[in-house]
Amino acid sequence: MVPRYSRPQMAEIWSPEARYRIWFEIEALAAEAMAAQGTIPEAAARTIREKGAARVANISAADVERIDEIERVTRHDVIAFLTWLGEGMGEDARFMHQGMTSSDVLDTTLAVQMTRAADLLIADVDAVLAALKARAIEHKHTPSIGRSHGIHAEPTTFGLKLAGHYAEFARNRARLVAARAEVATCAISGPVGTFASVDPAIETHVAKHMGLAVEPVSTQVIPRDRHAAFFAALAVVAGGVERLATEVRHLQRSEVREAEEFFHAGQKGSSAMPHKRNPVLSENLTGLARLVRGYAMPALENITLWHERDISHSSVERVIAPDATIALDFALMRLAGMMEKLTIYPERMTENLESLGGVVHSQKVLLALTQAGLSREGAYAAVQRAAMATWTKLGKADGRNFRDNLLADPEVAPVMDAAALDAAMDPMRDFRHVETIFARVFGAT
Amino acid sequence: MVPRYSRPQMAEIWSPEARYRIWFEIEALAAEAMAAQGTIPEAAARTIREKGAARVANISAADVERIDEIERVTRHDVIAFLTWLGEGMGEDARFMHQGMTSSDVLDTTLAVQMTRAADLLIADVDAVLAALKARAIEHKHTPSIGRSHGIHAEPTTFGLKLAGHYAEFARNRARLVAARAEVATCAISGPVGTFASVDPAIETHVAKHMGLAVEPVSTQVIPRDRHAAFFAALAVVAGGVERLATEVRHLQRSEVREAEEFFHAGQKGSSAMPHKRNPVLSENLTGLARLVRGYAMPALENITLWHERDISHSSVERVIAPDATIALDFALMRLAGMMEKLTIYPERMTENLESLGGVVHSQKVLLALTQAGLSREGAYAAVQRAAMATWTKLGKADGRNFRDNLLADPEVAPVMDAAALDAAMDPMRDFRHVETIFARVFGAT
Amino acid sequence: MVPRYSRPQMAEIWSPEARYRIWFEIEALAAEAMAAQGTIPEAAARTIREKGAARVANISAADVERIDEIERVTRHDVIAFLTWLGEGMGEDARFMHQGMTSSDVLDTTLAVQMTRAADLLIADVDAVLAALKARAIEHKHTPSIGRSHGIHAEPTTFGLKLAGHYAEFARNRARLVAARAEVATCAISGPVGTFASVDPAIETHVAKHMGLAVEPVSTQVIPRDRHAAFFAALAVVAGGVERLATEVRHLQRSEVREAEEFFHAGQKGSSAMPHKRNPVLSENLTGLARLVRGYAMPALENITLWHERDISHSSVERVIAPDATIALDFALMRLAGMMEKLTIYPERMTENLESLGGVVHSQKVLLALTQAGLSREGAYAAVQRAAMATWTKLGKADGRNFRDNLLADPEVAPVMDAAALDAAMDPMRDFRHVETIFARVFGAT
Amino acid sequence: MVPRYSRPQMAEIWSPEARYRIWFEIEALAAEAMAAQGTIPEAAARTIREKGAARVANISAADVERIDEIERVTRHDVIAFLTWLGEGMGEDARFMHQGMTSSDVLDTTLAVQMTRAADLLIADVDAVLAALKARAIEHKHTPSIGRSHGIHAEPTTFGLKLAGHYAEFARNRARLVAARAEVATCAISGPVGTFASVDPAIETHVAKHMGLAVEPVSTQVIPRDRHAAFFAALAVVAGGVERLATEVRHLQRSEVREAEEFFHAGQKGSSAMPHKRNPVLSENLTGLARLVRGYAMPALENITLWHERDISHSSVERVIAPDATIALDFALMRLAGMMEKLTIYPERMTENLESLGGVVHSQKVLLALTQAGLSREGAYAAVQRAAMATWTKLGKADGRNFRDNLLADPEVAPVMDAAALDAAMDPMRDFRHVETIFARVFGAT
Repeated sequence: MVPRYSRPQMAEIWSPEARYRIWFEIEALAAEAMAAQGTIPEAAARTIREKGAARVANISAADVERIDEIERVTRHDVIAFLTWLGEGMGEDARFMHQGMTSSDVLDTTLAVQMTRAADLLIADVDAVLAALKARAIEHKHTPSIGRSHGIHAEPTTFGLKLAGHYAEFARNRARLVAARAEVATCAISGPVGTFASVDPAIETHVAKHMGLAVEPVSTQVIPRDRHAAFFAALAVVAGGVERLATEVRHLQRSEVREAEEFFHAGQKGSSAMPHKRNPVLSENLTGLARLVRGYAMPALENITLWHERDISHSSVERVIAPDATIALDFALMRLAGMMEKLTIYPERMTENLESLGGVVHSQKVLLALTQAGLSREGAYAAVQRAAMATWTKLGKADGRNFRDNLLADPEVAPVMDAAALDAAMDPMRDFRHVETIFARVFGAT
Repeated sequence: MVPRYSRPQMAEIWSPEARYRIWFEIEALAAEAMAAQGTIPEAAARTIREKGAARVANISAADVERIDEIERVTRHDVIAFLTWLGEGMGEDARFMHQGMTSSDVLDTTLAVQMTRAADLLIADVDAVLAALKARAIEHKHTPSIGRSHGIHAEPTTFGLKLAGHYAEFARNRARLVAARAEVATCAISGPVGTFASVDPAIETHVAKHMGLAVEPVSTQVIPRDRHAAFFAALAVVAGGVERLATEVRHLQRSEVREAEEFFHAGQKGSSAMPHKRNPVLSENLTGLARLVRGYAMPALENITLWHERDISHSSVERVIAPDATIALDFALMRLAGMMEKLTIYPERMTENLESLGGVVHSQKVLLALTQAGLSREGAYAAVQRAAMATWTKLGKADGRNFRDNLLADPEVAPVMDAAALDAAMDPMRDFRHVETIFARVFGAT
Repeated sequence: MVPRYSRPQMAEIWSPEARYRIWFEIEALAAEAMAAQGTIPEAAARTIREKGAARVANISAADVERIDEIERVTRHDVIAFLTWLGEGMGEDARFMHQGMTSSDVLDTTLAVQMTRAADLLIADVDAVLAALKARAIEHKHTPSIGRSHGIHAEPTTFGLKLAGHYAEFARNRARLVAARAEVATCAISGPVGTFASVDPAIETHVAKHMGLAVEPVSTQVIPRDRHAAFFAALAVVAGGVERLATEVRHLQRSEVREAEEFFHAGQKGSSAMPHKRNPVLSENLTGLARLVRGYAMPALENITLWHERDISHSSVERVIAPDATIALDFALMRLAGMMEKLTIYPERMTENLESLGGVVHSQKVLLALTQAGLSREGAYAAVQRAAMATWTKLGKADGRNFRDNLLADPEVAPVMDAAALDAAMDPMRDFRHVETIFARVFGAT
Repeated sequence: MVPRYSRPQMAEIWSPEARYRIWFEIEALAAEAMAAQGTIPEAAARTIREKGAARVANISAADVERIDEIERVTRHDVIAFLTWLGEGMGEDARFMHQGMTSSDVLDTTLAVQMTRAADLLIADVDAVLAALKARAIEHKHTPSIGRSHGIHAEPTTFGLKLAGHYAEFARNRARLVAARAEVATCAISGPVGTFASVDPAIETHVAKHMGLAVEPVSTQVIPRDRHAAFFAALAVVAGGVERLATEVRHLQRSEVREAEEFFHAGQKGSSAMPHKRNPVLSENLTGLARLVRGYAMPALENITLWHERDISHSSVERVIAPDATIALDFALMRLAGMMEKLTIYPERMTENLESLGGVVHSQKVLLALTQAGLSREGAYAAVQRAAMATWTKLGKADGRNFRDNLLADPEVAPVMDAAALDAAMDPMRDFRHVETIFARVFGAT
């Protein structure tokens, strides 16, 4: 992932140094388990642990380059690493990796990296949730027009809008927790997964110390349906980022102006137009969501490896494992910050809410008319008539608001007077279940 | 979905008649709850239930056409249905749908359809699991070469191969159960989800009787991250179908011939070549998996609806909800049948296992040589040397098998005699943990 | 594709009857070419042509069912058809399909269907182009605010907006023409494409009469990169549909109201809210675009068939070939109609253009200040200062417009008086190249 | 893209230094054109060219960091660059970028980078074509079994197989040339593309010197359908890479062994199994193809920018523009090298061809029997009978080959003697049109 969209915490998980440290840890744990079983000498396991630990503790860029160099000859990354690791270990080096196959190390390492990445992502979602909850409570009762199809529908509150996004991110958190469990398995089962030359006890030992479950049946590799499910979950989460980002983009439109991304001192919105203050963060999030969605496709194709395994998944994962997690981590934290600092304009929300001459109360009138005895069809026609008359003359000198048009309507007038109409249109009716919904989403607040 | 890939059980879920019956049920339940609350007359709720039930019970193609006709005028599907349903209901018709919005009906109906579809898919996976388990147990000890990269690796058993697929489908079952829960919610919350004109108690009542949970906060629509997660789960399951289908395609290759799809009496493999018996079922499954994978993308894009909702998701779901579930249902049942009837050739498996002159035992020899005192690098070089000598003269008059090449090797000979080598190469070593793995996958069998 | 999104012209191309007629035509042409070569008797070719033509001319639903029935035994669609076709043809039936393989018929038929579909799609795009051109010319000089990031940027004209979409659809037309050429090839080359039992002259003859090019080298199948390129082109076209639909959705927003989809007499926007007039057509188009985009993925995966061919592409194409072309055909024609009838509100466009107190002229002022001697940075800061002061007090009693803020600015005042500022801000400057751009897009109009 | 899959030539195109050099070139050309028009002083244009050229010629990592630092304040990349570039340019710096908007620079730069990337990719495809042509000619007459569905079908030659891939890559070359043309446009049209403050002549001048066409109508940005078409083309090309890679993977399978990737001295196929020689290059290519396919999806979604532009495309392109081109460049060159050095085993091809007891000649026999007077159905049944009898006893002591089974068949014997059968089965018939096909693909060779 390009540095622009990388946070160091997540990028670090995918660094060569971090990877080699996990490789070593697996080899050392395996050696210790083998020694406990008597398969290799205790002393060898100790040497591997001690000399190896020292070597990886101080692993430098030069070491990484040295391992790459060995790989250019062997064309095999794990063998290259083991060769480097064994330098200076003497005879005992030969006891490393006994009966194991590279995938044992590679796939278990990937599991460790993906679970670490998942932990970060879950923490990110927590930050989003915290920001959403704070702003939702702050604006629990801020009236705001609800829009369906981009058209004013009925009043809601800005807090309710945010509560909806909060609930989605709460679901996303649960999905990430499930996705983490999907990939948190360890396989140390040797070629084609038969444990022919490595005892299942080694796997159990390594799994336990790496915080992973044992993969029940691996075919040399950990099956890729797990990883596909993980990346698919990331794509769903990215969709939630995009939905909220799109909301902000809409609210910041020049004609709407109900909210605005924080504009920093010194910031320039446009090289040409000094007046611009653009929702660039949320647009950026929209693009990042597309990326994360795109990464799910190769992950899904990766499931179908040939027979006990082929290595076609590897090039895909070398790229998308860091790229998808880094991009989503960046997006989530940017989203959290953006929502925390979002400038919200309640007055403007009220202005917009009232800008259509009252037609947004049409349903409440429809219901009242039905209850006053009009047929559903008749009531619908009357309300639509009054609303369209309001709408088409909006802002015109000869325009009348919805209320006046209704009172002048030959079918409405006989059944409903001004007082009854005002009662029907009372906007407080729209907000009477706000607490109920908040309690559903946030529990007691 | 084209009839060729549709099973009636699943197709029926998506028929207009089935949809209208669910629509009616929701309207009737809502009316009953409103009557219980005193919002509408009890008698009206009874009329709606009784007259409506009679009307939808016998809904005919002509009725469906009549509803379509009304929709061509109103351009609104739910209004068209309610108009049709209310014909003959008299005045009480106006008490239907009070304070509700179309999405209340549409989205709750979709939830019912998707959970029914999920139930069928789960049953399908159970059929796949049953077939896989039976065949796995049958071939628990059938030796078979394990292949990585398409290249013979080490011996495994055919039962172990199937156990791996079983474990994947067990995970897929769990994913479908989770996906079902994702979409099993009911929303009856009115425009923009505020319950302005419909009490939350109505929602609770409908949810309970439809076997759904209450959607904590809906914004007129049930949020589409739920549906996206559902279709993403289907894509992961489809990947499992493809992986197993690909295994069968490989095993049936002319050069491999370890298994074969059942060939029916009268079946013709090719219009031109009468000798052909092709793995057409598994190839078909490969294509169906691509389709189901493809349907996940628009579902993921559907998450980002504008504000409280737009209707862009609707055209997508009208197509992919039936198409993805029907295609996957067909694929799973085809897969189950195919695995039940798969012809398996154990003798051919043994032939293939032995066809490379014994090099598939190279790891066991490597280990033995290491334990006999050779360095890891030295042992690796010796074994690779012997294996390559075997490999390159395979089937040649002057070829020697792996064992002979090893015994003739100047570095191997001093440390290992024929008896030790034979012990090291004993194929029984490869199978000693079969029971362990079976117990992990199937429990006690 | 569901009937709701199917136009009969396109659906007909994919009907079983249409397919069987093309199958017959290919067999008849091939027989005639073989007779001309002397491979089969002239009389047989005549019988095949005459009896076959009569049979397919009147092909009924019962015939289609009969063919399906035969296929249930043979499990081979082409053999089933040939059996049905040969009934009543007597001995000469055996001269049909000589040396050919099913793919010769199937793939050439698909080529015919896809080119027909492409022809319809190209005609659809022509309808979109005609609508866009008419409306663009109509509104060539209708001032309208240009928006970047959803924020008012600088004035443009509504005609220019449409010209941009016209240019995109002109490119889309060219892409469809290219896509049509990609798939317009004929292969009659027998098993594995070697012409072992069918002379290349047969292929040339069939290709010529079916209006196709000869596939230079087919491997039993026409290579699927051609089809992938076709469906990828459809996805790009769908993107153009979505971009224009999204523009309309934005323009119809309640706060914007610059354009509106035609609202039919009798139409109901919402079952709950009689005031609603929603951009449902353009939202529908957004969803259809997602579908068409989704169909490109399995088409891309179809490229990788095994060896000379496998049949995994077939299930994919049975679904996406009709579905993608039918959905896009429907979308394009809906788009054309929508743009023809779009209600456009020039007055509202002017209101919006002027709603931000003149800050949309900031760039022109920036330039004038630079030319009047301010440094770029100084000018930028001054203009941004005046714009932000305008912006933040928009609609407030103590607000001042951009012009007044500029004239009051201590750095602007010394270098620019009111007359110079008015000259700089003259909106006519924005429109002076409208003709140039129109000439680029439409040629002389 | 990770270094492992990056070639320096392609990576260099996307380096910050390369980007800044193009940015400068555009600004300098624009200034020169403005000076020629008299909009800015000639001397200023000269200063910009000379001082700027010196500055970017020696642009260092420290400079890149300095620009990033300015961007952290302005939050605008182009402004940051211009500020850095103008340092030391004195007063004349203010004449840079006059009337232009960032997108003028950014989008034209992207066009330059994408055309350069396309040029490299086209050269890469040329390398693939050269390798394929050389190997195809080398093996024009090497008999090889053609396989449909993975099952032996009829004989072909290895050269014909390669000719098919050559033809696909020739189409891919044409697609890349078309894709290059799609994106090779220049836009210097100012905010919302109206040329309000920048004359169209500037655009013409810059376009000409940058080797680009003028974008007929840009809306501040170059429309993204162009880029989508580009990335879609890359996805189609990647499919071709995968198809050929999959062929090699199949041919190298242990049971097939008809071809093998070059195995380097020192290479290790497996850390556990020294005998392994795996087709890791072609498996790697399979994975890379998945990645490139995945990048097409966000590119397709990028088409729908809001109004005159939003910036959601930017984050997508910052990642996929380098990643997709770098991955495909690497894949194509790896493929070219792999095909050049592929070890091909003609003897093994012959062995496989003959391994099924002659059933692969079934079609030729079917035809001969039809011509000898059997009905098509009768002939088919007889041949299928003989083939299945051969097939099911393949390698068994009591097995008979296809020829013997046919001669013993009660329906075949009366119409065809051994000589006639041998003539019908003559494998030379299969190869008689090899030259024809080669001429179609390669012209005269």
